[in-house]
Amino acid sequence: MDRFEHLYSEMAKRVKPSDVREILKMMQDPEIISFAGGMPNPDTFPIDAIKEIANRVLEDDPVVTLQYGTTEGYNPLRETIAEYMSSQQVECDIDNVLIMSGATQAIALAAELLVERGKTVLTESPSFLASLICFRNYGAEIIGLTMDDDGVQVDMFEEKLKALRKQGIHPPLFYTIPNFQNPTGVTLSEKRRRRIIDLANEFDFLVFEDDPYGNLRFEGEHIPPIKSFDDSGRVIYASSFSKILSPGLRLGWTVADIELSRKLALLKQTSDVSANVFSQRIANEYMRGGYFDRQLPIIKEIYARKQRRMLSALENYFPKTSRWTRPKGGMFIWVELQKSIDTKQMFPKAIEKKVAYVQGSCFFPDGSGRNTMRLNFTHPADEKIDQGIKRLAELIELEMKSASA
Amino acid sequence: MDRFEHLYSEMAKRVKPSDVREILKMMQDPEIISFAGGMPNPDTFPIDAIKEIANRVLEDDPVVTLQYGTTEGYNPLRETIAEYMSSQQVECDIDNVLIMSGATQAIALAAELLVERGKTVLTESPSFLASLICFRNYGAEIIGLTMDDDGVQVDMFEEKLKALRKQGIHPPLFYTIPNFQNPTGVTLSEKRRRRIIDLANEFDFLVFEDDPYGNLRFEGEHIPPIKSFDDSGRVIYASSFSKILSPGLRLGWTVADIELSRKLALLKQTSDVSANVFSQRIANEYMRGGYFDRQLPIIKEIYARKQRRMLSALENYFPKTSRWTRPKGGMFIWVELQKSIDTKQMFPKAIEKKVAYVQGSCFFPDGSGRNTMRLNFTHPADEKIDQGIKRLAELIELEMKSASA
Repeated sequence: MDRFEHLYSEMAKRVKPSDVREILKMMQDPEIISFAGGMPNPDTFPIDAIKEIANRVLEDDPVVTLQYGTTEGYNPLRETIAEYMSSQQVECDIDNVLIMSGATQAIALAAELLVERGKTVLTESPSFLASLICFRNYGAEIIGLTMDDDGVQVDMFEEKLKALRKQGIHPPLFYTIPNFQNPTGVTLSEKRRRRIIDLANEFDFLVFEDDPYGNLRFEGEHIPPIKSFDDSGRVIYASSFSKILSPGLRLGWTVADIELSRKLALLKQTSDVSANVFSQRIANEYMRGGYFDRQLPIIKEIYARKQRRMLSALENYFPKTSRWTRPKGGMFIWVELQKSIDTKQMFPKAIEKKVAYVQGSCFFPDGSGRNTMRLNFTHPADEKIDQGIKRLAELIELEMKSASA
Repeated sequence: MDRFEHLYSEMAKRVKPSDVREILKMMQDPEIISFAGGMPNPDTFPIDAIKEIANRVLEDDPVVTLQYGTTEGYNPLRETIAEYMSSQQVECDIDNVLIMSGATQAIALAAELLVERGKTVLTESPSFLASLICFRNYGAEIIGLTMDDDGVQVDMFEEKLKALRKQGIHPPLFYTIPNFQNPTGVTLSEKRRRRIIDLANEFDFLVFEDDPYGNLRFEGEHIPPIKSFDDSGRVIYASSFSKILSPGLRLGWTVADIELSRKLALLKQTSDVSANVFSQRIANEYMRGGYFDRQLPIIKEIYARKQRRMLSALENYFPKTSRWTRPKGGMFIWVELQKSIDTKQMFPKAIEKKVAYVQGSCFFPDGSGRNTMRLNFTHPADEKIDQGIKRLAELIELEMKSASA
């Protein structure tokens, strides 16, 4: 079918369009209430601040702003991030910080660093779809680890590592989203964070700590990043400006041991030279000028309100046989329906009813979780949340009836 | 030395810092006159236009500007590029166009698409260092093809392909910079462009046409891109906004057959999701609003002036035993010194004399060309060009004397 298939690399041959993404792309009907995406709400964008800062950096220093930047990132921003991370209990300096063209790039470069055909990668099960796709593209076998309300179950994790060791399998990488996980909303406990470091040391693997949602906490106490317990430099920490500033600016960062940072920078160099310099300067002024400190509470208030609304709609409309998470932050609620419901099969009917979600099974490395779904509460308008959850509940009731008929 | 080496992928193990890049990084002394980089001159940046446009897009449509964009690119910009390419004799529509986070990303994704260990890639010899590094990182064996004043020598190219075929070697990719090539400044003749398409069809390979300098022509007639002669969809054309707008905005594009574009988009998706949306809107308004048409002659005038200045300085100061190219555009002049001079060994002495260039040998896949150097004329200030060339000429005279002593 593809005339040039025989010329492609093994990786390119593996790369296939994802069902879910193709579905999301086609979903252009404005009447559909979508809980499917993972987009921040535009109401959270600090438009005036960005306008003001953009003008200022172009006024004050257009030459640096518009010229090529260094691969490691714009140094004042690296400095800012190093200080910010230190305030999050992650001791680091500028040499540990790389500015990425979004956290997605950090995941891709970590995959390039560690993953290839024949390698096994450990992830939470379920986990972030794009990361699973990325690891698979690079040729990984993915093993998903069971979670509960405190995140990945570390005892079973250790058992798994022992079993793999017996089989001669040595995973180089454990990928985790410790805060308000995508897709479940679950947060990893501090005790388990510490234990993961012990496991990484004992079983000799690196940890990719993907933390785009950590500062979107609506309630409860901040838990220090896994990276803050990392005494052996085995954690690559990554976060993003997409949820606290703007995704369109494509900016994220990593904090890692100096050896790992150097390798990641070399891989980034051939990948895209550097992150957008204009964006980096906007982000730096945003952090330095007090804008971020003012904006973050606004963002959290908007999202907390939307989440409360979704939780109460679920309470009001969803069948009693379903269960869902009540995350203390982030962007997603995870729903488990009764076993007879298959959310993938149900999806076309949901689209007919003008409501969308993501089927849970695509987040499971083994394709299980057929009765689960991920709901995003950050993007839809408040009043749409009630309507959409009601539509979805009606559909589920119908499905349950036809299943028991 | 690297504690985690044993966990790395084969690719990551191959990736090493480049000597040249490390040297360039250390070259912070402001007294050094550098002909080494490949940066556009900040005088060419349309600062006022960018400021005006940035304000306008944030005013008119902040939601789209700051939100996630699609992987293929911002559709109005894809449309603009499709029209622009049609004006360059490349018939295409929006589906053939992908917006990249700089042309470097296009090279990297093409490498990911086609290159892996055991594959052979053909390039001009000499060729662009970053591309050679990229192909090597992906595991390629690189074979360099001899050039003359009309670009790559196509008869020898064909002989090489036949010889490789006999050895059972089937290169999937020929990489070329057809206009004002980096590093030589040489332009590929139209006749040879057509012949390359014939070779690609006959020997079944794809062509990556890297064209960042094509519109920086100071004199002579525009030659249509290889892509314009591509009757079989074998050419991936790539260009960049770095030299006609700003490198800090990190924007480039590809034009390719629909099958190749789809694969490249899938690879881009896991690589960085999408190019910076704010930048894409700025670029689109820049092209649509007549700014580009006004700015391009200004850029060309500045560069033509600097090039004349460098050519006359070379004429005035360089020894009669040296030869150099007189490109009709672009950013570089290529110098061949007498055989006894080794430009790599001479480099530390040049730094002492406060002048810098890039040693030619690093552009040759086989490391030859020890008596050559690349000189960039776009970045240094006009008066520095004379001074720098004079310093360099004095050094070369000294080297010649010590060689003949």
